[in-house]
Amino acid sequence: MARVGLSRVVEPGDLAALKAFDGLEPLEIWDRLHHNDPDLDRWSTRLATADPHRDLERAAAAGARFVIPGDDEWPDQVEILEDAGQLTRRAGVPFGLWVRGKPNLRTVLTRAIAIVGARACSSYGEHVAAELASGLADNGVTVVSGGAFGIDAAAHRGTLAAAGLTIAVLACGVDVSYPKRNSALLSRIAEDGLVVSELPPGCSPTKLRFLARNRLIAAATQGTVVIEAAVRSGALNTAGWAEQCGRAVLAVPGPITSRMSAGSHLLVRERNAVLATNVADIIEATAPFGTSLTPHPRAPETLTDSLPTDLQRTLDAVPVRTPAPTPRIAATAGLDVPTTQQSLEALTALNLTTQTPTGWHLKTPPTP
Amino acid sequence: MARVGLSRVVEPGDLAALKAFDGLEPLEIWDRLHHNDPDLDRWSTRLATADPHRDLERAAAAGARFVIPGDDEWPDQVEILEDAGQLTRRAGVPFGLWVRGKPNLRTVLTRAIAIVGARACSSYGEHVAAELASGLADNGVTVVSGGAFGIDAAAHRGTLAAAGLTIAVLACGVDVSYPKRNSALLSRIAEDGLVVSELPPGCSPTKLRFLARNRLIAAATQGTVVIEAAVRSGALNTAGWAEQCGRAVLAVPGPITSRMSAGSHLLVRERNAVLATNVADIIEATAPFGTSLTPHPRAPETLTDSLPTDLQRTLDAVPVRTPAPTPRIAATAGLDVPTTQQSLEALTALNLTTQTPTGWHLKTPPTP
Repeated sequence: MARVGLSRVVEPGDLAALKAFDGLEPLEIWDRLHHNDPDLDRWSTRLATADPHRDLERAAAAGARFVIPGDDEWPDQVEILEDAGQLTRRAGVPFGLWVRGKPNLRTVLTRAIAIVGARACSSYGEHVAAELASGLADNGVTVVSGGAFGIDAAAHRGTLAAAGLTIAVLACGVDVSYPKRNSALLSRIAEDGLVVSELPPGCSPTKLRFLARNRLIAAATQGTVVIEAAVRSGALNTAGWAEQCGRAVLAVPGPITSRMSAGSHLLVRERNAVLATNVADIIEATAPFGTSLTPHPRAPETLTDSLPTDLQRTLDAVPVRTPAPTPRIAATAGLDVPTTQQSLEALTALNLTTQTPTGWHLKTPPTP
Repeated sequence: MARVGLSRVVEPGDLAALKAFDGLEPLEIWDRLHHNDPDLDRWSTRLATADPHRDLERAAAAGARFVIPGDDEWPDQVEILEDAGQLTRRAGVPFGLWVRGKPNLRTVLTRAIAIVGARACSSYGEHVAAELASGLADNGVTVVSGGAFGIDAAAHRGTLAAAGLTIAVLACGVDVSYPKRNSALLSRIAEDGLVVSELPPGCSPTKLRFLARNRLIAAATQGTVVIEAAVRSGALNTAGWAEQCGRAVLAVPGPITSRMSAGSHLLVRERNAVLATNVADIIEATAPFGTSLTPHPRAPETLTDSLPTDLQRTLDAVPVRTPAPTPRIAATAGLDVPTTQQSLEALTALNLTTQTPTGWHLKTPPTP
């Protein structure tokens, strides 16, 4: 109950609270707040109207529960925020998480990747977000995002389309449809996956709450993939949190002519993010050691590549159709006649050249 | 004259020649080749028809000269090939370079970047190659490429369009128009810039000559920029040479949905190439230490970003238009009333909020 109350009274990631309550258990904090300590005056206004029982009822009405440390569902990994980000503005472990949806939060976060990016993304970004999300879902990875327009929505939709698990971590109450036009999407996520927030029911989003929310997305997942982000954006803020939490940071490249990909390129160039070009890249960078090896695109070595140099030079000198005699091929190849003769015989044995009464020509044209 | 003759007799980067002639001066090699040493038989066929005087005349007729070590025009940096690539197939310093065009080869290579890439490039690749080449030219950088279709041609054309210096390094004689459809372009390059090859006049290109040519492009420049390349391509071969020569390797990203950008992404992911998104990136990665600082895109810090947290939280809680009284703003912000009152006064002093008889509202909507 103290944690429910604190979730209402204290702003997410409030550094003043972290400082004032350092080392105290939630119950002690809750008690102290009720003792009219003038040092704790900044929380008095909200404390006056806080009603944990009502918040729990309101949550239940919306199909939501409150998950706290020690619960079976609590995702321990968010406790990294105890140490991470002490120098930034929105730090700290949440007092608890409001969770709407059926799956067990801890279980679905066992293998989870965040996909974040621009609201005003391009159709390329939208396409790529949906494709990567589907691919991750096909590999049993839960896709976490922020429920916003653009990349977030495409990632959620791509996961749902692949019948995968997706989690929307909001900067408002889990019963609040923000943005409004995503309300059908958020309902679907709550039905098949989870909608999560550290803010109690009814809360509206604010700029600072978005920043605080980003730390949860980063901390709860094994890696954050940025797909399209302007050079100053929430997605880069999430990437910064992932860095601070020791999580993988990945960025999807795009055309250098697109302003929307500038943030991704900046992450790779200046913040050492891993370039992500496909699902395998993401799984490789975020999987526990040794669990996954990425098959990278490699063209097959062709037979002609593995030929000894003399044979290759001879082959280069053999005409495609009109036969040429050995001495002429030798001159073109820059080899002596015996070596050339020997090479031509070897090439013919390899089915690469053909001998005719007037000389040699290629059997099939070499691949360009 | 010995070097002219050797340029005709020995294939570019022939490892057998490197081995047989190790430590010998060109004149000694030339003499030895004429002594019918059976170990040197492989060069006998070409030696029989080699005619250095005729090659020089033929070059002169095509407006070309032969540049050798010690000449005022000789670009010393290609001598890195003495040490680089001993384990690969096409190594070694060329005996000399056939040069067609007016500028001094050494001078124009003082500040030079290679731009290479796919022949069958996309229009994105072509556009980017031309833009980056123009930009480099505007910065006084010579743009070096291979005279091929696609990225090469776009880089040459972009440089010429910016009235910059461009060099085509060919895998055939400098008097040979290959590919045929680029002959007008090659003539323009020879007129305004330089056409260079280690092969004597009249020589045709072969697959191995392309690979040998790539080592010259890499060695002669301060860095190689790959724009669009399949995962197995000449451009990646050039990048490999640049790596071996200790030159900068850069790759331009593109859509992950484009097969043409796969080679560029591979270079960044697996071979530590620098991600190149603009001219400044390229100049920064290839300039001598301390000569250049890249201005990277950064959005300006806004006033609201630098506000203390209490002010920012208060500002977040102030309605856009309909005024709200201090206690309501305090509750929304999660701050006590005196702190909120103080913050609102400060925000009004900063011209961010306005006080009305019924409360406070924003002066101008904050930037989203």
